[in-house]
Amino acid sequence: MKKALAIDVGGTKIYNTLVDEAGQIAGEIEKHSTPKEYSEIIDLFKSIISKYEDEVDVIAFATCGAVNNSNDGILGSTGNIAKDYPKTNFKSLSTKPVFVENDANCAAWAEHIIGASKGYPYSIMLTLGTGVGGGIILDNKLYKGKSGAAGEMHFKIARNAKRRCTCGSKDCFEAYASGTGLRLTAVEISGNLDITTYDVIAGLEIGNELMMRIFNTWQNDIINGIIGLADIFDPDVVVLSGSMAEFVNTEYITDAVNKEIVTQPTKVVKASAGNYSGMIGAGLLALKVGVNG
Amino acid sequence: MKKALAIDVGGTKIYNTLVDEAGQIAGEIEKHSTPKEYSEIIDLFKSIISKYEDEVDVIAFATCGAVNNSNDGILGSTGNIAKDYPKTNFKSLSTKPVFVENDANCAAWAEHIIGASKGYPYSIMLTLGTGVGGGIILDNKLYKGKSGAAGEMHFKIARNAKRRCTCGSKDCFEAYASGTGLRLTAVEISGNLDITTYDVIAGLEIGNELMMRIFNTWQNDIINGIIGLADIFDPDVVVLSGSMAEFVNTEYITDAVNKEIVTQPTKVVKASAGNYSGMIGAGLLALKVGVNG
Repeated sequence: MKKALAIDVGGTKIYNTLVDEAGQIAGEIEKHSTPKEYSEIIDLFKSIISKYEDEVDVIAFATCGAVNNSNDGILGSTGNIAKDYPKTNFKSLSTKPVFVENDANCAAWAEHIIGASKGYPYSIMLTLGTGVGGGIILDNKLYKGKSGAAGEMHFKIARNAKRRCTCGSKDCFEAYASGTGLRLTAVEISGNLDITTYDVIAGLEIGNELMMRIFNTWQNDIINGIIGLADIFDPDVVVLSGSMAEFVNTEYITDAVNKEIVTQPTKVVKASAGNYSGMIGAGLLALKVGVNG
Repeated sequence: MKKALAIDVGGTKIYNTLVDEAGQIAGEIEKHSTPKEYSEIIDLFKSIISKYEDEVDVIAFATCGAVNNSNDGILGSTGNIAKDYPKTNFKSLSTKPVFVENDANCAAWAEHIIGASKGYPYSIMLTLGTGVGGGIILDNKLYKGKSGAAGEMHFKIARNAKRRCTCGSKDCFEAYASGTGLRLTAVEISGNLDITTYDVIAGLEIGNELMMRIFNTWQNDIINGIIGLADIFDPDVVVLSGSMAEFVNTEYITDAVNKEIVTQPTKVVKASAGNYSGMIGAGLLALKVGVNG
């Protein structure tokens, strides 16, 4: 069975493992802190690749940042990682084929092949973490747009220019639906500048009314964003992943969304491809595309 | 050259004409008031079809309402037209092939083949009229979603539940970006309940500051919606059509959008396929799909 060396590159951690054609993890999972210096990042890539490249058919990167349509380079800049990283010439890192895709797109693909959106031609994945990532599968294909950068969930869901988003714009879905968004909603509603997402989650568990109101406001912002995506895409399913997804009630969200959309009913479910879905999706995409490419 | 009998069905008017394979109007344009009674609508269809069906290869409907993926029936209900209209069995109306598509989708297709988005694989069309219609072309294909209903521009761009939309939901893009939206923005800003869109447009022409402020607020809501669509789709071009599109400044909108998006630069342009783009698009789609179908 063909195998990929999968490398997940984030601003704080870099993971690597082996992934087979069936989407199974087929090696040890190694975890590294992302070096501050660009040259050290490249050295780390080289050391991982030299260790595994003889065993695999392709090298598959799941990376932060938007990736071009030829799956070999990053478009524009990416926050929170060495400034020169987007200039990386990935193909030069190995004599084996090298495939690169955005990490959220990879995770969406893993859900489509082995996870919660398996069997559905049309799905949208939202990764609710510190920020919000997105991946769009249409007609069983990863949707990339004209340049490869599609699926950025920076549509605006508010009109009062109240919250600045990490993208530099204001009132984006990410600024409300992320973990950061939950904290900002908590500050707005409670008036307590020191309140944390943990306070809200802990309060929920003991039925604290204020914390429930904060949580419901946050979850309602997620619902509002999904309503828009469902009206635009008419998807079979919307998959929620990421650290914040574990707290939401997908049955409640599904009902609330279907009450408001003008397209046909959809469903909202939690991701099921696991914590390493980025690497799994990168491996699956690379084994599909990269070997022949 | 093959020809379609194109029939555009709206809540107030029904038009018909002939459209050839090149997207040219190839017959007289006939205009009828939409009958109130469903049986009279069907009688009108029959009389139009019997007059022209011998001359054409296919009957092409551009209709209000969402249309299924087999292009032969309407999904759900459509406002502002006889209640039974969505149940119409279009195929039974002629011995020639009958093709049905949503009117905004047809107009988007006409722009893609002969109009402002010609030559661009990825385009979004927004029809700014009394309401807002949408049509999405991805990789040179009309995007329909799982059921055919995709492209409804009812994503929310506000969070205060201030404006009820025609769809029954609140704060949709349509409730701000439409002609109705301009009037509501004018009422909100001026405090004058009797202000009309005509007052705003007339005020613009004489440089009235209040009317310019109202107009700019409205245009900024359109910009905010387009930012979201550009971040989601990474389109080559966004086409603005409909009666309200003539007032907007597409160069200003393009610059404002490109300043905020995180995907690659796009452009916003006005539609150029003319007033009958719905019929032209229906004819072109039908001659492509319907004749062999």
